[in-house]
Amino acid sequence: MELPFLPEREKKPRETGVTMMMDKGIGVGQVRDLISVAGNFIDFAKLGFGTSLVCGHSKEKVKVYRDAGIKVFVGGTLFEACAIRNMIDEFKRFVTELGVDAVEVSDGSIVMDHDEKCKHIGNFARDFTVLSEVGAKEDDIFIDPDKWAEHMESELDAGSSYVIAEARETGTVGIYKKDGTADISIINDILKKIPSRQILWEAPQKQQQAWFIKLIGANVNLGNIAPVDVIPLETLRLGLRGDTFFEFLPEEYQKYKLKKK
Amino acid sequence: MELPFLPEREKKPRETGVTMMMDKGIGVGQVRDLISVAGNFIDFAKLGFGTSLVCGHSKEKVKVYRDAGIKVFVGGTLFEACAIRNMIDEFKRFVTELGVDAVEVSDGSIVMDHDEKCKHIGNFARDFTVLSEVGAKEDDIFIDPDKWAEHMESELDAGSSYVIAEARETGTVGIYKKDGTADISIINDILKKIPSRQILWEAPQKQQQAWFIKLIGANVNLGNIAPVDVIPLETLRLGLRGDTFFEFLPEEYQKYKLKKK
Amino acid sequence: MELPFLPEREKKPRETGVTMMMDKGIGVGQVRDLISVAGNFIDFAKLGFGTSLVCGHSKEKVKVYRDAGIKVFVGGTLFEACAIRNMIDEFKRFVTELGVDAVEVSDGSIVMDHDEKCKHIGNFARDFTVLSEVGAKEDDIFIDPDKWAEHMESELDAGSSYVIAEARETGTVGIYKKDGTADISIINDILKKIPSRQILWEAPQKQQQAWFIKLIGANVNLGNIAPVDVIPLETLRLGLRGDTFFEFLPEEYQKYKLKKK
Repeated sequence: MELPFLPEREKKPRETGVTMMMDKGIGVGQVRDLISVAGNFIDFAKLGFGTSLVCGHSKEKVKVYRDAGIKVFVGGTLFEACAIRNMIDEFKRFVTELGVDAVEVSDGSIVMDHDEKCKHIGNFARDFTVLSEVGAKEDDIFIDPDKWAEHMESELDAGSSYVIAEARETGTVGIYKKDGTADISIINDILKKIPSRQILWEAPQKQQQAWFIKLIGANVNLGNIAPVDVIPLETLRLGLRGDTFFEFLPEEYQKYKLKKK
Repeated sequence: MELPFLPEREKKPRETGVTMMMDKGIGVGQVRDLISVAGNFIDFAKLGFGTSLVCGHSKEKVKVYRDAGIKVFVGGTLFEACAIRNMIDEFKRFVTELGVDAVEVSDGSIVMDHDEKCKHIGNFARDFTVLSEVGAKEDDIFIDPDKWAEHMESELDAGSSYVIAEARETGTVGIYKKDGTADISIINDILKKIPSRQILWEAPQKQQQAWFIKLIGANVNLGNIAPVDVIPLETLRLGLRGDTFFEFLPEEYQKYKLKKK
Repeated sequence: MELPFLPEREKKPRETGVTMMMDKGIGVGQVRDLISVAGNFIDFAKLGFGTSLVCGHSKEKVKVYRDAGIKVFVGGTLFEACAIRNMIDEFKRFVTELGVDAVEVSDGSIVMDHDEKCKHIGNFARDFTVLSEVGAKEDDIFIDPDKWAEHMESELDAGSSYVIAEARETGTVGIYKKDGTADISIINDILKKIPSRQILWEAPQKQQQAWFIKLIGANVNLGNIAPVDVIPLETLRLGLRGDTFFEFLPEEYQKYKLKKK
């Protein structure tokens, strides 16, 4: 059935409208099962934080993802755990051996000189798709609003394909307030300087996904999506769920909207 | 092991005490796996909102459900997306082709004349089991409390097998307040006029399920149950979980209840 | 890749640092899939509350767990449902037939004389690993803080291998306050008298798991872990996740910690 007024979505491999799924250690069987129904809607799979180091069959899982046209990277926390121990070469051997094609460079848990971060980005960009993350994992960490965009800019210059705006898997830090609502002033500051197609917004909660789709459109890049939310997110992007139902319908349909009291 | 004082449950296919599960796009393998342990406790599977249109292998999945004696319908949001576009015939062809045996007729996102809604119900009732939903998906939509029961009544007359009381998959709108607690006055108004066995209460949260079991009994019809909650709900119905432990035990056992401070 | 400063973890079968997973009725296929990636990090599987009585293929599932070196027991609520009905012999036959090797003795929903509880513990300890639970399932149940440790002590004397500190699957009662934060005074009272290696703390929420790891160390015994959280918990134990990132790093690394505002 072809419904009119559904927004256009690029086919994979696509550069905008990407969905980055967060895999916190699910089984390989579950990954295969999910790909069979939702593989077209997953562009990146992140093996969250240090799970790739402890989870069994990680190598097999990476292959399953890649065979389905899904790029894979390990969570930035593992990069940071290696960086702080001065083990970036070992990290590079580890991810090469694991078979991933992307790398996340982040400083969400540690203090890292920004030039050093950019050097790492440049380094990895020679062999991998690099996603670099801006923002701290803990709340109450002060980040100068100007720094968000400035850092993103220099990280893109250094070789990142996407800059990730931090929210954790909870969606309560970084670009969101503690209650999960968007920090509009930070987000606007970022959008003034960075092209939206190069930003990957972490948006684990449905309200956050809907909020960004309304702000930027169906083809906004969203990340930290739970496996169970991949298909629901795709319906949000298409206006096939209550939250975005009227978003892509022409003016003459808006009269059917329910009125708030 | 046969425990005395467990409430009687009808065997499938049953008309009361039904559980409607919400499938937001899980894999076919997961559906098979779930059915093998919980198939007896699922009466309806809803392919939530517009997921049936984007999810891969939907036809195969519908067959797996139906072979297990589970009726299937697609979320009312897809019906509404078609209705607003004047594509009800296409919708009917789509669900027929998909192989479902039930249809949800709703107006949770759009303004629809109630006579028109009832006409759709009558139309689909010739070929499908119809569930019609009352209540809006967004909060702050004013619905006259009297209208709930009145609409349910005319929808049952028009051909609905069940009327669904809206709560979304969050359980925070419709018959619930924003904090998820029941809106007792609406629920009482409904129960004064509509036989409980024809109402399917959306109750995604455990506290809501327990609340309705205490109000109406083990064989209340409950919907929007997450796949992972199907078995836990069955234990709630039987008094095999803390929340309803004393519900079905005779008076002489009540003395073993823990005292609140 | 071998990272320095990761805390030592005992290999299975281990006595401390155990993880008890809560199975609320997942399919046997999902259990196999999970074990293949996370089997080394699951020491006990609890078939929650009365699910073992209603869930299909429970016997097969128990075998799958046990073949992977995972001890299995049924939720204490089923023990209590049998105890209150004077059916402990039937309960024993049921779990024997089910093939489990452990039993939970609890009084979280019912009033039970503590001597009687200890008699049950001694009884089951002849044939099973016994875990006994202290604490009530409902909030607002007054338990004298002194009783926690006192009861735990006599239950260990009676034959329990571990005493479980109650929190339910929500993590909002017993040793936690309603908002999920730890009730430090109860926990300190317990730790003054009971060796930490004999306590299994129910800690379903990530913040609770991190809190106990910081208090007691990587090898604290934690329970009521959701299947999806087994691998994430292992990374918390190892300092491979933001929340415990600096926990096991030597002093000279602490300068890389982000400063709170």
